[in-house]
Amino acid sequence: MTSADFPAEGRNYQLVVIGAGPGGFDAAIDAASNGLKVALVEKDMLGGTCLNAGCIPTKLYLGATGPIHDLAAQAKVKVASGEISVDMKVLLTRKDRFIGATRKAMGQKLKTLGIDLYQGTAKVSGKGKVEVESPVEKAELEYENLIIAAGSHPTAFPNIAPDGEAVVDSTGFLALDKMPESLLVVGAGFIGLEMAQIASRMGAKVTIVDALDRIAVYEDPEVSKTLHSIFKRSKWNIRTGVKVASVKTVDGQAVLETEDGESITAGKALIAIGRRPNSADLGLENAEIATAGPGYINVNESLEAAPGIYAIGDINGITLLAHAASHQAGYVVRRILGEESGPYAPGPMPSILYGSPETMRVGDMPADLEGKGKVETSSFPLAANPIAQSYASTQGFVKVIWLDGKVKGVTAVGHHVASLTTTSAMIVQEGWTSEDIHKVIFPHPTLDEALLGALKAERKEV
Amino acid sequence: MTSADFPAEGRNYQLVVIGAGPGGFDAAIDAASNGLKVALVEKDMLGGTCLNAGCIPTKLYLGATGPIHDLAAQAKVKVASGEISVDMKVLLTRKDRFIGATRKAMGQKLKTLGIDLYQGTAKVSGKGKVEVESPVEKAELEYENLIIAAGSHPTAFPNIAPDGEAVVDSTGFLALDKMPESLLVVGAGFIGLEMAQIASRMGAKVTIVDALDRIAVYEDPEVSKTLHSIFKRSKWNIRTGVKVASVKTVDGQAVLETEDGESITAGKALIAIGRRPNSADLGLENAEIATAGPGYINVNESLEAAPGIYAIGDINGITLLAHAASHQAGYVVRRILGEESGPYAPGPMPSILYGSPETMRVGDMPADLEGKGKVETSSFPLAANPIAQSYASTQGFVKVIWLDGKVKGVTAVGHHVASLTTTSAMIVQEGWTSEDIHKVIFPHPTLDEALLGALKAERKEV
Repeated sequence: MTSADFPAEGRNYQLVVIGAGPGGFDAAIDAASNGLKVALVEKDMLGGTCLNAGCIPTKLYLGATGPIHDLAAQAKVKVASGEISVDMKVLLTRKDRFIGATRKAMGQKLKTLGIDLYQGTAKVSGKGKVEVESPVEKAELEYENLIIAAGSHPTAFPNIAPDGEAVVDSTGFLALDKMPESLLVVGAGFIGLEMAQIASRMGAKVTIVDALDRIAVYEDPEVSKTLHSIFKRSKWNIRTGVKVASVKTVDGQAVLETEDGESITAGKALIAIGRRPNSADLGLENAEIATAGPGYINVNESLEAAPGIYAIGDINGITLLAHAASHQAGYVVRRILGEESGPYAPGPMPSILYGSPETMRVGDMPADLEGKGKVETSSFPLAANPIAQSYASTQGFVKVIWLDGKVKGVTAVGHHVASLTTTSAMIVQEGWTSEDIHKVIFPHPTLDEALLGALKAERKEV
Repeated sequence: MTSADFPAEGRNYQLVVIGAGPGGFDAAIDAASNGLKVALVEKDMLGGTCLNAGCIPTKLYLGATGPIHDLAAQAKVKVASGEISVDMKVLLTRKDRFIGATRKAMGQKLKTLGIDLYQGTAKVSGKGKVEVESPVEKAELEYENLIIAAGSHPTAFPNIAPDGEAVVDSTGFLALDKMPESLLVVGAGFIGLEMAQIASRMGAKVTIVDALDRIAVYEDPEVSKTLHSIFKRSKWNIRTGVKVASVKTVDGQAVLETEDGESITAGKALIAIGRRPNSADLGLENAEIATAGPGYINVNESLEAAPGIYAIGDINGITLLAHAASHQAGYVVRRILGEESGPYAPGPMPSILYGSPETMRVGDMPADLEGKGKVETSSFPLAANPIAQSYASTQGFVKVIWLDGKVKGVTAVGHHVASLTTTSAMIVQEGWTSEDIHKVIFPHPTLDEALLGALKAERKEV
């Protein structure tokens, strides 16, 4: 976005959307495609965190470095040998070019659909009113419906924050034009683990620190354990249960001090300790919108924060994932159009960690189902799957979680298991019983057969 | 299998299965797991063509050479550089070891379930009787139910046949311990195209010849066209509409003569012109079993060839794919157990070509639906998908086929699109309308979103 000029015409909209990330952009497109007059306000870049500094660039980096892992796996079994080097500067340029082209296409789509784009900050200024301000202009928009999709930003603490030098957050990491020889990752969640893999593939020595007692704590404990074991084989230094006192740049190096007085040094440190909602300066008080915790907007079962005002995506704190935001967007727009009247029911939510290994999870894990009935699990090891064998990456498994004889969740860890996610989501959504297994022909040979194997395997009560 | 000794005890079985490929083996396991007394007769190796000389070894070769393609794709956009070499001898050993281990595990499973394995040739000798013969023994088995799952073998003609020298079939190709500098592939179906890719990745100059006017003729014409274009970029010499008169070894080289008198020479020639059923010596006449065409066993809608005699898998000619055989096995065993009474209804049949690109197809293509109602298609280009972008392999698309507003088929071509197959099979099985698209959350970012994009895209009437 280069123009800071606001649209010239009327300021009355059937829908104003704050934030042009996956949730806000999709909401604007959906609404305008259905004939609503829509304004979209974005203070930074179209596409939000996901496109500009999150899932998309990370996937480009993982894709670019993928052959390094895949070659290493084949080299370990002595089938292949060779060397691969990745040019970070070219990768950076390619990433920026792709993201730029995507933003351009998004901007074009807004134009085609007649959506008014306001580049500026938005503030709810009163009932039915949003004030928009750019460095050169100010305007007041009137709305019938408002969708707040302002997203989130990386968490930082006074002593644990990017400093423009050796300590970076995820956005800073994706702007590096040279990989350090060693990377210290603070936080073993999705972002930390994906970026650590990128660095590791490019030859950086990885140390990963987390205050909790296991990595990928949102996953089933068995998944965390296998992840840990696989990353250990890649010679990562994994430090769980460590409380960080500070991370600072000292003589150009990143230095972490633990609360126990230990110090860890690396070329760069990546702070990936979570995200916080962007709700501070939205003028929520002017529309009597309540927040909870670090600023998550409270919504009712229809995702409404106040009459005619909806909050979707990261900012409502329900699920901090791009596809959750998009799905909520679809629901809210259908609601505004009068096509939906029931409460928001997302169904089984999928979640993916990319890399090698990948993890996938959809629906409920055993811990979610405690006391709700007869909980069983059935598993299948990737080592018995010919596609996993063909990748020479056979550590991992697929696990199905059953409640009273119906599939309630699926999780997996291993090379390429992300590809099982949508199929699993459909199976969980439909609550398959063992009879349903024959309904669909699983093609052979596929990694999907490891899911089929888990569906058919002997169940163990939890 | 090393022992040629037949099981010592009684020869009366509730079920005798001829052939231990995917269909026969699964049938034996299913039946024995449900308490039936089962004999399994196999004249060659457990696992049949799929495991020993078909889908499985081919996938191991494609997996082993995958990094070569993936690196080349990243190198083309200048992100990565390097070199990879694959050691064919190690690969051959690894393949044989994996297949051997799988066969051993299969044999163990038969033992655990108390299935009697007869290593020998089987011949229907009369009503309820099968004669089994090994080089050292002969026995007559009595059955209540018989499943014939004897499979198929590569087609050859007098002048177009493996000759133990430079002309090989798929089995011979998978036994090569050195890739020739040039490979001539006769037949541009699945087998030819997958093996050509393996050879091409390993540096062989590929010429592929087919009598028909396009490659991958079983696929939607648009898919064939994209495949053609991608392989052309890999510098393949693709010759369609060419009638082959002979392929012979001349001075150690493979030499093909066309009916038009042209001659093509290569280091090796692979004959991959189709498969023929193994029905010639089964004594079918003794049970009044009829065959059609090149020997496919005629079956009724319950897959019965005669009362109490079923034919499943390649030998009935319905669908020459391993998962079709396994699915038919499940149906027939449930039928024998009295759990099924309706006709066999496989639902949408999936089909995959592996490699880079891959193709997937499930359900009906536009050509299958002519005259059946309002046929529409909707497509999404892979170039607009971030995961395809991350692979730097963006040629291809996903295409959805609709009949009267319901999804009847899905096809795709491009890198890794095989991973869309099971999800697509479920969508086709359920006959999604445009309203169903919101039922399941597609995770972001995934290649699956290209399928979602195709489901949502504007439809064009065919």
